[in-house]
This record gives sequence, C-alpha cells and structure tokens, in this order.
Amino acid sequence: MVVTGQALHAHCAALFPICRSITGPGLRATLSYIGERIPLALREVPSGTPVLDWTVPLEWTPRAAWIRRLDGETVVDFAQHNLHLLQYSHAMDAVVPLEELQRHLHSLPDQPDLIPYRTAYYGSTWGFCLPHRLRETLQDEAYRVRIDAELAPGALSYGECVLPGEQEEEVLVSIHCCHPSLANDNLSGIAIGMELARMLAARARRFTWRFLFIPGTIGSLAWLAANRDGVGRIRHGMVLSCLGDGGPLTWKQSRRGDAAIDRIAAHVLRHEDPANRVLPFTPYGYDERQYCSPGFDLPVGCLMRSPNGTFPEYHTSADDLDFVRPEHLARSFKAIERIAEVIEHDACPVSTAPYGEPQLGRRGLYAPIGGTGPAVEARGFSQMALLWVLNLADGRHSLLDMAERAGEPFAAIRAAAEAAAAAGLLALVTASRFPADKGSGNSAPEFAGQRDIA
Amino acid sequence: MVVTGQALHAHCAALFPICRSITGPGLRATLSYIGERIPLALREVPSGTPVLDWTVPLEWTPRAAWIRRLDGETVVDFAQHNLHLLQYSHAMDAVVPLEELQRHLHSLPDQPDLIPYRTAYYGSTWGFCLPHRLRETLQDEAYRVRIDAELAPGALSYGECVLPGEQEEEVLVSIHCCHPSLANDNLSGIAIGMELARMLAARARRFTWRFLFIPGTIGSLAWLAANRDGVGRIRHGMVLSCLGDGGPLTWKQSRRGDAAIDRIAAHVLRHEDPANRVLPFTPYGYDERQYCSPGFDLPVGCLMRSPNGTFPEYHTSADDLDFVRPEHLARSFKAIERIAEVIEHDACPVSTAPYGEPQLGRRGLYAPIGGTGPAVEARGFSQMALLWVLNLADGRHSLLDMAERAGEPFAAIRAAAEAAAAAGLLALVTASRFPADKGSGNSAPEFAGQRDIA
Amino acid sequence: MVVTGQALHAHCAALFPICRSITGPGLRATLSYIGERIPLALREVPSGTPVLDWTVPLEWTPRAAWIRRLDGETVVDFAQHNLHLLQYSHAMDAVVPLEELQRHLHSLPDQPDLIPYRTAYYGSTWGFCLPHRLRETLQDEAYRVRIDAELAPGALSYGECVLPGEQEEEVLVSIHCCHPSLANDNLSGIAIGMELARMLAARARRFTWRFLFIPGTIGSLAWLAANRDGVGRIRHGMVLSCLGDGGPLTWKQSRRGDAAIDRIAAHVLRHEDPANRVLPFTPYGYDERQYCSPGFDLPVGCLMRSPNGTFPEYHTSADDLDFVRPEHLARSFKAIERIAEVIEHDACPVSTAPYGEPQLGRRGLYAPIGGTGPAVEARGFSQMALLWVLNLADGRHSLLDMAERAGEPFAAIRAAAEAAAAAGLLALVTASRFPADKGSGNSAPEFAGQRDIA
Repeated sequence: MVVTGQALHAHCAALFPICRSITGPGLRATLSYIGERIPLALREVPSGTPVLDWTVPLEWTPRAAWIRRLDGETVVDFAQHNLHLLQYSHAMDAVVPLEELQRHLHSLPDQPDLIPYRTAYYGSTWGFCLPHRLRETLQDEAYRVRIDAELAPGALSYGECVLPGEQEEEVLVSIHCCHPSLANDNLSGIAIGMELARMLAARARRFTWRFLFIPGTIGSLAWLAANRDGVGRIRHGMVLSCLGDGGPLTWKQSRRGDAAIDRIAAHVLRHEDPANRVLPFTPYGYDERQYCSPGFDLPVGCLMRSPNGTFPEYHTSADDLDFVRPEHLARSFKAIERIAEVIEHDACPVSTAPYGEPQLGRRGLYAPIGGTGPAVEARGFSQMALLWVLNLADGRHSLLDMAERAGEPFAAIRAAAEAAAAAGLLALVTASRFPADKGSGNSAPEFAGQRDIA
Repeated sequence: MVVTGQALHAHCAALFPICRSITGPGLRATLSYIGERIPLALREVPSGTPVLDWTVPLEWTPRAAWIRRLDGETVVDFAQHNLHLLQYSHAMDAVVPLEELQRHLHSLPDQPDLIPYRTAYYGSTWGFCLPHRLRETLQDEAYRVRIDAELAPGALSYGECVLPGEQEEEVLVSIHCCHPSLANDNLSGIAIGMELARMLAARARRFTWRFLFIPGTIGSLAWLAANRDGVGRIRHGMVLSCLGDGGPLTWKQSRRGDAAIDRIAAHVLRHEDPANRVLPFTPYGYDERQYCSPGFDLPVGCLMRSPNGTFPEYHTSADDLDFVRPEHLARSFKAIERIAEVIEHDACPVSTAPYGEPQLGRRGLYAPIGGTGPAVEARGFSQMALLWVLNLADGRHSLLDMAERAGEPFAAIRAAAEAAAAAGLLALVTASRFPADKGSGNSAPEFAGQRDIA
Repeated sequence: MVVTGQALHAHCAALFPICRSITGPGLRATLSYIGERIPLALREVPSGTPVLDWTVPLEWTPRAAWIRRLDGETVVDFAQHNLHLLQYSHAMDAVVPLEELQRHLHSLPDQPDLIPYRTAYYGSTWGFCLPHRLRETLQDEAYRVRIDAELAPGALSYGECVLPGEQEEEVLVSIHCCHPSLANDNLSGIAIGMELARMLAARARRFTWRFLFIPGTIGSLAWLAANRDGVGRIRHGMVLSCLGDGGPLTWKQSRRGDAAIDRIAAHVLRHEDPANRVLPFTPYGYDERQYCSPGFDLPVGCLMRSPNGTFPEYHTSADDLDFVRPEHLARSFKAIERIAEVIEHDACPVSTAPYGEPQLGRRGLYAPIGGTGPAVEARGFSQMALLWVLNLADGRHSLLDMAERAGEPFAAIRAAAEAAAAAGLLALVTASRFPADKGSGNSAPEFAGQRDIA
C-alpha cells in the first residue's frame, strides 16, 4: 500500500471548508469523515465535566455572523471565511459604535491582507477577525453586528482508534482536530495520522497503536483524565502537526529528552532529511504539553515540519490548501512510516558465531576477489552494514544501536540482519529493550462523566 | 540595602596606604578596619606553631627602609611607597658596593616605570623593588642601605566572621588580606567580602556563612589546621580576589569541577556577563590551592575578574586606586549577591496540580486572547518561566535546574515559582538537594597552639 | 638502547624480497628472520584444522609463473616481482586465448604503471597482476601461461614471543606477516614489533607481553581458537600495521572505544604528533576484527600511520622500500615506546602530606623568590606538573589521569612523581587500576589440532 501526496492532500481539501472548534458540529463532522476510513470510537464528554484542573466548556454552535454598514452593505461575513468569527463568540445583535467595535476586532497590521485566527474559549466575549486593510476602511460612526451562535450544554467530542498488537504496550499518536480552515495546522496531521492508522490496521503489529483525534488541550486533558490508570502502557508517543509545509522535518523531544522515541525520531529524520531539526522540549506548543506534564511525563514528542509560530502563514488565512503541498505531505508520511518501522521492528540479535568473524565467503556474503563477488548491495544493504550487524550482535545492541554506530539507515541494518539470520548467523530476538516508562495514575482523583457513544 | 561601587571603592582607598604582609601590624590594622564594620573574631596563631606541613613564621615589622647615595641623597625610600621593600627583608645597615646591591634589587625591564611587588617569606634575605628606569641611574660605586625591620616571635593574625543560619551547613568565603598597596589584589576582594557579610548579617539565613580574612597560603593553612574536624560542614565555598578591574567575570572551578557552587557560579555569570569565563581548576592561584588540596578537596572555587598573572598591572605599583573602578566593583558585587541568592533560595518545588497543565487563565496567569491579558511580565518573570516552573515541579528539579533548562535567570524562575505558590499551584520545598561534600578530618593529627583573642 | 629509523628500515629491506602468503615457505622464512632476533616459538596448525568458523587452508608454494607470447617472449614473470601472481593461484600450464586470459588479469586503469596486489585464498582460481599499461599491449590471439605452484596439505605457521612479567595480565601485540613485497603493509609493523619485543625483553616488566607474528585473519583466528581460555588475561592489545609512511600517527579504537589502551594511545599520540588521528572502531581493517568480534571483545586497537585503503600506494607495487622512510619508522617506534611506558609505569600515587599543600621551598622544589630558585625544569618536569601530581595524589588518580588533566606528557608527570616520591611526599603505588576485561571462553567449543614445533 502506497500513500501518495495527492491522497493526503485530498483529505485536507475535503476537510478544509468545515468550521471546527474545540466542541460542536464542525468537530463532529470531521470525526465522522475519519470514522468512515478507519475504525474510530467517538467519545463525548458532557459540558461541565471536570477534567483534571479544567472543566469541559459549553458546546459552541456558530451559524451566521456578520458586520454590516447601517445602509445594509456587508463588510465582514462568517459565511465567506470561517476565520472571520472569533471562536467561542457569544450571540450578538446590536448597532455598535465604531469605537467599541474596534475593541472587538482582530487584524494583523504587518500582514494586512490576511485574516488572523483567534479564539476565546474560556473568556466570555465576541469578536471578528479581518484583514487589516479592510479594517482601515471602516469609517462609519456605527455598524450593525450580528452573531447567531449558541453556547449551550452539550459535549466535547473526540475520536479514538485502537489497533491491538501482540503486546499490551502502546504507541500513542495524538492529533488535534479543533482548528477551522487551517490546512497545515492541522489538516496535514489529520490526513497523515489517518493514513498511518489505515496502513497499520492492515498489518500484524507488535505494539498496540492508539490514535487520538482530539480538540487541542481540553481534548488531551479529557482523554488523560479518563485514562490515568492506563497511561503506563504507553511506550512511545507522537503528536502530529504542521506536516504539509516546506520546512525541514522537525522533532520536538519529549520532556525526558532521552526517551526511545526521541532517539528513533532523530535517527529517522537524520536519514530522511539532511536539514532536519531536533528541538529540545519546551512547555509550549501542542498536546505534548499535557502528555509531558509532570504527573504524567510520558515519552511523547511532536513531529512537525515548521513548528507553531515560526512561519508567517501560521494561524492566518494564508495557511490554506496552496500552502500545504502533496510532496511535503508525502515526505512527512514516509518519515512517520519509517519511525513506525523502527518501533515495530527493532530487536537485539544474537550471533550464532560470535568468536572471530564468520566466514562470509562460503555463504555468498563476501566478495572472493575484491569487487568481483556477489554484490550484497543488491539485497538492500552494504557489506559494511552486514559486518556491523555481525560485530554488534552480542544481545546488548539493538538494530537501532547498530544503525547509529554504523551510520546506516535502520532499514539497511534490518535487511542485513535478516540476510544474516537467513544464513544461520543470527538469532533475531524481537523482545523490546526500550526502557519502561514510569507511568502514573495510582493516586489519580476519581474521574466520572464520560460516556461512549461510538 | 544597596551597596554602591563608590562605597566599595572607598573601602579600597581607606585600606590602600597600609603596608600589609602575612603577619604584623599592617595586617592587624586591616582586620581592625573590617572588625569595625562586621562582627569579626580576631585569631592569632603564635610564631613557630606547626600548621599542617608548614610552620607559622616570625612576625615582620618593617619601620623604615632606604637606599641613599654616600652623599646622603635618598634614591629609594619605603616611606614613599611600601612596595619598595622586599617583604620579609631582615634588618640591614651598611654601605654596599653597587655590584652587591644589584643582586638585591628587583625591577621590571619591560615595565620600566613600575615598582614590582616581591616577597621572600621563607627565605632569609633582604631587597628593594624599584622602577627599572631608576635602577639604571645607579652609577656610584657604593650606596648606603638601611632597613629598620624586625623579624621576631609574634603571631599570625586572621579574622573570622561567622553568621549562623538555620542549618549547620556552611558557606565559606575566603579573602586574602596580606598584600600591601595593591588595590585589585586584593582590596577589591576585602571590600566586596566585607559588604557581602554586612548584607547577609541583616537577613535571615538558611546556611551558616563563614568569612575568613586571612593572609594568603599560611592563613588558610592555619585555619584548616585548626578546623580539620569542621570542614565537612562546608557545602559551598568561594575565594574572592581581583574583583575591581575591567576584565570579564571569571569563575575558577573547584578541584571537583562539578560541585554545586561551580554550577551556581556558572549560571549567575552567564546571565550577569556575556563575556564571562569559567576556568577549570588548576593547583596554582589563591587559597583554593589549600581548600582543594587532596586531603580536604572542598567545594571551593574562586571568583575573579582578571585572574592572577593575566593583567599587566598584576603585582606592580600600577595595581592602584585608579585601576579598580567603582562600576566594576559594583558589577562584581551584584554577581556575588546573585550567587548568594541561589545558595540561599534554591529549592525543589512540587506541583499541586501535576496531571496536565493547570488552567492558568482562571487564575489570572495567562492571557485570555493572545497579548491582551494581564502581563505576568510585570511580576518579574515571563510566561515561559512560569510554564517551565510548573512543568518541572516534580520534586526532582531545583529552581536552578529549571533556570538552566529554561535559559532564564534564577531570579525570574524564583519569582515565577513564588507566583505559582501564591496561586496554590506549588508547594515550595526548601530542603537543599545539593550533594553532600565528603568532608575529611577524622584522621587529622592533633593540632594545638591557637588562642582566640577576639 | 636506541632503535634507529635506519635499523628499522634495514629489517624492511631484508624481508622485502620474500614472497610471503598466509601459508608456505615465504612466511616461514620471515618467521625465521624474526626468530633469529627475539625469542620466538614457531607454531604450525595443520591444513584442514577447524579454527572457529573457518578451516586452515592448504599450504601454498609458488615456484614460478609467467605469461609468454607463443613466440616465447616473456610478458609477465613472477620472478621479476612477486606481486605478479594472484596469491593462491593453482598450477596452470596451457595456451590461453586472450579473451579468456583477460578474465584472469588484474590491473589498475587509474594507476597504469603499478602492479596491484590480489589474493584468492578461499577461491579456486588462478590469475596474474600487472601494470595496466602492459596489459593494454596484449594483442596476440593467445598466450602461453604457466604457473608452477603447489596447493597441498601442510600447515599454517605463526610465531609467538612471550615475555613474562611480574603479573599474569598480558599485553597483546599482533602483527600480520602474510603480505609479499609490500613495505608499509606490513614490513613496517614487523620491524617495529620485533624491535619493541627486543627492547622489552631486556627490561624488567610489569605485564606479560605477547607478540604474535601471524598471517592476517586466519592466523589470528587460529591463535584465538587455541587460546580461548586465556584471552581473559589480555589487559591491553595493539595491532601494528602501516607504520612507515608519512601520514599522521593514527589510533583506531577498540570495539569498546573506552578501553584503557584507547586512552593511553590517544594520550601518547596527542603529544607525539599534533596531526594525530583517533578513529572509531569499524569492523573492517586488520586482525582487530577478530580480537574485537563479539564473543571476544578484547581491548585491542590498531596503531597505524595511513590506514589501509587510504593511500594510493596501498596494495600496489608502489608500497616499496622508498615509500617507507627511516624517519617515519623512527617516530612510530617512539610512539609505541611511549605507549609501552604508560602501560608499564602507570600508577596511583598517594600523598603523604595531603592536607594543604606541602611546603616545597624547604625541599628545594619551589623558587623562593619568583624565578630565582632551583629550576625543577632541569629535572624534566615543570613546576605545574609537580603541583598537579601533589594535588591529585589521592589514590584515585593515576599518573595518566594527572597527565591528561594537566595537559602534560605522561613522562613529565612520571618524572615529577618520582621527584616528589624521592622527597618523601608521595607513596608510589604501582597497582594497576585499569578496568578488568570481561574475558570469555568458558563456553568455547573444544578445539584440537594445534601442535607446537618451536
């Protein structure tokens, strides 16, 4: 199964028009789209439910919103672009003097043609976002403002896709789905996470893979609140975001910094993108903030191309379907596919002929006269890769250790190890040697209020 | 209480004219000046007392010294500058042929206008120091030389200021006071150490602070000999010297290199002076040589600006009151004040809401819409400083750990932690987690001969 | 005893004409030359003997070999240069069409005037090596080819020189002796290893030194197979090769990378050659491949100048007696002599006056007035070297530790330590603190078939 950049981009295009938020119909429509393609349980957490230090907010349903001149001419219309409405604006219907209106407008003087994306989830206010150039044309004394939006008890929705593996130990993939028409942040992550789940669903798996499609912050908090006793099973975790732009592949490390997933991601990125970046953890960004809060401290990092806040299109109307490119989506997918390969296939092989080098020539694994023998390269690995595998096959080195020491990609070392195993030179031991995570949750306060409706 | 550069410089000016040595009236006059300003015990160790591998020397009392032409014209006069006399010169009264006199003269051909500073504590000789240009004018066949100086049984003097804290664990601050009219080396250290002691004396203290005002080498040896059983209480230590010149702030590490004080000093200097230097320990320099001898191996480094031997004014008459500047003294004082702050206030806070991030918005600690909320910056810390504190408040990270990981100054992290504690988000645990020093002294030979006269 | 570059070069010259291989009369002649100069046991392992994963091959005795035109003119003649014959070619006597002959010829198009060195130990074929320019002149339809060579049951020969020391722990020096007329690879190693053995034989030794003069790969395998139970005694090991060219001194680390020998070699090379290189282990090169196979994992690295494959003369007729220079051989010998000094003389001294600095002045080890005292430099060490020795003499620092921390050569630190010991300031404890090697061999399969004939 090959996942093309075009297919990934098509998912982004299909989901782009929907006005998502951290609750409400747009979020449910998005989860529904995903649920048509992978096995997805839809979870709903009622408004008012305490989740850790937070409370699930009211559900927000925006229907229409505009600013009109008193002569009826429409100046700003939510129907034209769903970034125009400040997220979680309450209902409004009034003639507003310009001076007061200005206090409710958001624009970008330095990027005067773009609409910014703004939210006020936990305030109680209203507002519009618009191009600064348009804002500057507002000269009337007052404008008519109408917001048809409901803030009412409902639920927080999120989707959970669990693919059981041979082991109970889990790999967590977390993707925020709460942003409206922003393509890179984070339709790119949704498309790639969904296709990764589809690919893994079709294979035998060592690990149990858990994909969360959640609204940012409150969604991961809700999931963590409901699963405090289970997080100890998470061996590796990744947040996916901003994977469709042209920036270099970027890994933001887990809080631990030296988790196995940090090493795996750094290894893969080094071979997939010479310009790759590995950034240290900071307590700002996406849902890794919650997974890496001190009580949980899970081995969860974040895979990105351009990080949040570092590209001019970030959180503006310029983060659109032209900004994310099929070729970037495809390269991001390939990277996460290779990360998954390491997670699933790392092992600590043990040589069956550890004393001295085994005689490779008689097994067809060495050139009898320099350069004239059977080229092992045709099998997908170099002679040196094979020598490294045999030299380090002492049961204390994983294939990833070997790949790093040899400077070879994991896939080449894995191929060499399989050739050596086929020649009887290795016993491939697949038991994971990843360090156990310390987990948590035993002293977690009781949590109630979640009902599954999937 | 603010300590100004002017006040520090005034101390240097007051003490500059005194002819100090490792024993004698000049040293006592200096200790007396200090004792008028901070609580100081004066210790006297009799000549001939064995101190570790050494013996306390005779006490030296220079009164007058000159070289005159046979016609009575004075060529060199100790009354003009107290660097003119080789320290510990014995008495002398003779007509000396020029050829022999030359063997007793010290000058600097490369700095012909400066008087060098020379000592012969443990030899038995006499000599004069003079500008090379003056030396070159000596053409007579013989000169009359007179040194009125006494070398007689007496005592070695030093001052000790102990400021008890909540804990018995100690911070040692050691300052050499044996150099005559040299301002940077080490009136600068005396002024800063004295004012630090005065500032700390006015505060509640966690640690017990011990300030030693001692003659170099033999003074620290005498103190160590008398306190072998107590040095295990020393948790942090600093030698202060050369703190008034324009060089960058410099920390010479303890012999251990990774003592807590090494980390603290490096952290503070990084934020106080971009040009700062952290130098590895070497067994040459000031009294850290004694504290870091292998039998003691105390966590004692040395705070300086320009290290000994690295500036042209070093140990010459150019190390005067113009060479040390109030602004440099003030910056040095600020650095040591901040070092003291870390020592006294480091702690390992524990979050009361460790599962997920706490909701800062409802506590007024987060902007509800980007850039529009209450600026936490007004409280002396950044939003990121607060997020770091909360993320690392797992009881295993000290405030200093947090400051280093966040790249923020300790004071900002401390302010953020106090704000979080005030909001009920942290329990501030002040128990030190600095590694215990191994101490020593149990097998120390018996030491006698010290009498306190304070 | 001084070993000159001329003497080392003379050994290369004496051995150069011999046609060595991994078995046979040339190898035995070489071992005989060595055995006339150092105590050497000659070991012979019969053809067919299994050695670990390999089998000792038939013995090869080449006598004559040529290619002639059908009119009798000789084109290529083994008698002219013993690189002309592919090593382990079987006997041959036939008229061979040019097209078929070409498949048995080896030349270097990029170095058309050089004869390459090629081997086919474990194939069954024949061939000639010749300058590419000569090969291009072959135009006849067929040539007469004759190879008078015997492949017959015999033995693998190697030489073993054991110099017992005070301790059973061993230092292994392994030198391959299987290459025909190639001077750098490895007559240089043979000459230097032989002279090192001669030098050490004349001295008292702490360690037992074991020198192996062996054919590459199969020789070290044969020795390892016969000595599996004894390899745990090896504390340090070196393979010597390519030590006569003009490249910088190079240490290829053991598989462990942090073995004591890795540190020792790096220290010596740092002081002997500013351009020195320390290369990480790779499972390709010389017999370190076998010593560092995972079942043995011995602390064995490789001392070289230009590594195998990195210089244009490598494995060609240009690796001749002009390519290796007496001055390079002499510098290589000096380096290994200094490595041997560290191995034999490292120790952990303990100060007898550890509390404070000892008073050096009264012992004549410190200048009483700056620059005027007895220069300790005349004794082969600096004042700082002495201060470092005394400061670190806590029984936990070896002389090598001190040398590294002080940035001084081991010899200077050793001289300072001996001066301090002579002054009663140090107890020199010579017990090695090198980490024990983990050894192996308990589960080794039974090995038989070796007979000693020395």
